[in-house]
Amino acid sequence: MQTEGRNAVLELLKTDKTIDKIMMEQGAQGSLGRIFAEARQKGVRVQFVKRDVLDKTSETGRHQGVIAFATDYEYSDLDDIIANKGKSGGFVVLCDSIEDVHNLGSILRVCECAGVDGVVIPKAGSAAVNESVVRISAGAAEHVKVAKVSSLNKTIERLKKEGYWVYALEAGEKSIYEADLTGNLALVVGGEDSGVHRLTRELCDGTLSLPLFGKVNSLNASVALGIACYEAVRKREGL
Amino acid sequence: MQTEGRNAVLELLKTDKTIDKIMMEQGAQGSLGRIFAEARQKGVRVQFVKRDVLDKTSETGRHQGVIAFATDYEYSDLDDIIANKGKSGGFVVLCDSIEDVHNLGSILRVCECAGVDGVVIPKAGSAAVNESVVRISAGAAEHVKVAKVSSLNKTIERLKKEGYWVYALEAGEKSIYEADLTGNLALVVGGEDSGVHRLTRELCDGTLSLPLFGKVNSLNASVALGIACYEAVRKREGL
Repeated sequence: MQTEGRNAVLELLKTDKTIDKIMMEQGAQGSLGRIFAEARQKGVRVQFVKRDVLDKTSETGRHQGVIAFATDYEYSDLDDIIANKGKSGGFVVLCDSIEDVHNLGSILRVCECAGVDGVVIPKAGSAAVNESVVRISAGAAEHVKVAKVSSLNKTIERLKKEGYWVYALEAGEKSIYEADLTGNLALVVGGEDSGVHRLTRELCDGTLSLPLFGKVNSLNASVALGIACYEAVRKREGL
Repeated sequence: MQTEGRNAVLELLKTDKTIDKIMMEQGAQGSLGRIFAEARQKGVRVQFVKRDVLDKTSETGRHQGVIAFATDYEYSDLDDIIANKGKSGGFVVLCDSIEDVHNLGSILRVCECAGVDGVVIPKAGSAAVNESVVRISAGAAEHVKVAKVSSLNKTIERLKKEGYWVYALEAGEKSIYEADLTGNLALVVGGEDSGVHRLTRELCDGTLSLPLFGKVNSLNASVALGIACYEAVRKREGL
């Protein structure tokens, strides 16, 4: 979806829509500066181009030096995901600060294959489901429910009230092989470098880790999640 | 490792060393054409640059219009990997046509974390362990043994003679949860698009698959391998 013109782009920046990038005229003055500042604050990529590139890209002929490209991805909400519970109970994955589109795409692919009810990502500090994520997920993003929430911590509290056991995937107390992963289950996966935030981890019912037999001290986020999800599936389906 | 000069680069192209790229002077004549043809045939990337770029890059001052960059990675051989057997028996991973450096890097990381004895890749039709692979593997490539063999099929025959059970990870007969993965074990993983070659698959003792619960019909190669390796670890270590 393409949005053209200064006011339209400013309005778009106020919404929750996922903006892939903003194309802006090089050296332009006035309200474009404000658009640049707001885009920066929201972490939206701004690409400076010559006026004739905008002219060629424009669908309306009235771009006023700026065109935004937004994704039409339709997010679900947490209630949809909770209502999506299967016969083995609820199974939700929460992503804490997965900023890399490759990781988010891979995570959505893993979740879709493992039959997870839905994936929760926070509005701030996370990659959004844009076209790259959809492509990297091999299309899985279109089939698995994704909810974008204001607070991951409030979501964890809500899930606990709904009877979910919430575990952070982190080096810690128990291995995934020692835990009972049946019933209503939520797994929290963290970013490559940062892991799960301390406060978020403390809200969980516990941490679950994978045994590591080598010298490298961690698996990639989507691989670790894949192993944990399939261990859960094995126990939940009695495989 | 940097190799400069026409004869030196031609000699390098005859060896098994992993050449990351060859830098060549734009518009140059003579034996550079032969180097270009041989590099192309081996699938080595050739970058055409201006003479002054070569002058700046040169360490010897005698580049004659060509500099090759090779990786110093030290491969193991199959005997090293077989001799590396742990108390739970041998555990080997074979990569059939993993052409993508991201996939190979991720696979080496998974194998190192799961404590696999070593990884086998074919000389032709596979990404080699170059600097990108080492980086993507998060350094795991330096800790896990990798053997480069002329024929994956002959390797499978050898492993079977040595008492290994060899399984291709492919949609097929049994799920990984039904198989006994203890003892001497070899898993063959295929490329994203092509999977395991028919002839290679037929040489295996069987195929093992992962149950898929969604609409997307496959997991990424390194994720699928991660899940299979950890299911093997769980059974082998009695977790």
